[in-house]
Amino acid sequence: MRMRNKPWAMDFLSSNDDIVDVESRYAGRMDEFFETKQPLHIEVGTGMGAFITELARRNPHINYAGIELDKNVMIRVLEKVRELELANVRLVLLDANAIKEYFSEGEVDRIYLNFSDPWPKKRHEKRRLTFRSFLRQYREIAKPGGELHFKTDNRGLFEYSLVSLNRFGMDFHEVILDLHAAEPEGNIRTEYEEKFSAKGNLIYRIKASF
Amino acid sequence: MRMRNKPWAMDFLSSNDDIVDVESRYAGRMDEFFETKQPLHIEVGTGMGAFITELARRNPHINYAGIELDKNVMIRVLEKVRELELANVRLVLLDANAIKEYFSEGEVDRIYLNFSDPWPKKRHEKRRLTFRSFLRQYREIAKPGGELHFKTDNRGLFEYSLVSLNRFGMDFHEVILDLHAAEPEGNIRTEYEEKFSAKGNLIYRIKASF
Repeated sequence: MRMRNKPWAMDFLSSNDDIVDVESRYAGRMDEFFETKQPLHIEVGTGMGAFITELARRNPHINYAGIELDKNVMIRVLEKVRELELANVRLVLLDANAIKEYFSEGEVDRIYLNFSDPWPKKRHEKRRLTFRSFLRQYREIAKPGGELHFKTDNRGLFEYSLVSLNRFGMDFHEVILDLHAAEPEGNIRTEYEEKFSAKGNLIYRIKASF
Repeated sequence: MRMRNKPWAMDFLSSNDDIVDVESRYAGRMDEFFETKQPLHIEVGTGMGAFITELARRNPHINYAGIELDKNVMIRVLEKVRELELANVRLVLLDANAIKEYFSEGEVDRIYLNFSDPWPKKRHEKRRLTFRSFLRQYREIAKPGGELHFKTDNRGLFEYSLVSLNRFGMDFHEVILDLHAAEPEGNIRTEYEEKFSAKGNLIYRIKASF
């Protein structure tokens, strides 16, 4: 999700430090960032935040951390968190590559990846969020049996991810190859999902555990 | 593949015992059924045989055993084997459930499943050819590292099979979610595949090993 650069973005995020962590202040002690101690689910790459904010609204007994690298995008998520007055969402300005340094071992109950950049060129394989080096990081921060839920409309990325997760030794719980054909009640559509489904793209989803 | 019942089918197959094994005469010693000792690939459920006969024509240095339960269907495969004078195809009239009794341990290099019956009802799960009891049989007759290649146009069966193969501990080599979008040169279309692809169905394929 590219947006017009806002020169004031970093100042704005920093001044909202009750919701956003821009300097890894809560690295290794994320529970102190939330009002209540309860299970922690994270979304790696929030986009504009429709998914995580709606999920958090429906599940007040779970804490949600949204990881996003783009500060201009994060402003939009922040606005949604404020508007909905969500006490159980916190945002972390972070490169997904640094996720292992931010969260402590076994801290996370579930990881969501939604419509991640497909990086279709073979030479960019290492940048895909389902490449084994990322899976290794997720496994380290996840509780034993912790889950990864991944949605995309990109066929190549999904094909790749099925193989990557399998070869990494993950246990598949469910694979859906046309999520909107019989949309599960609990499904929350992201902005991308709405847009690309309307174009006729299939939406794929997998739930697996480490 | 249901066909009109031919009362003379069994007699006809029996009288072609240089190509067809109707009474498990070659159980446990299949190599004696072929002219040449070479790797053995099997197809479980041949349908009308377009796939296995074309595959055998292209690969004379591999032996192919076609397993089929329906004797009326098997006549069609037999006709193709005769017509193409294929020395490397033999047919076995057999229930897939008895596969472990027919082949000896580690005898098979590769197993093909093409457009198997989806058995969509949950209570029929055990009949699906990718149910774990079948996978257990395949693993027993397969060489270490032996491969399973599975194609279908049935979304439900493919979703199910991805989970089933994964949970069984198989290693995925490749998953393709739209085989005809960029059809691999080596792909041989089955009769079903032609028909259902023309209808606009997606064709799915997985290659995995035990």
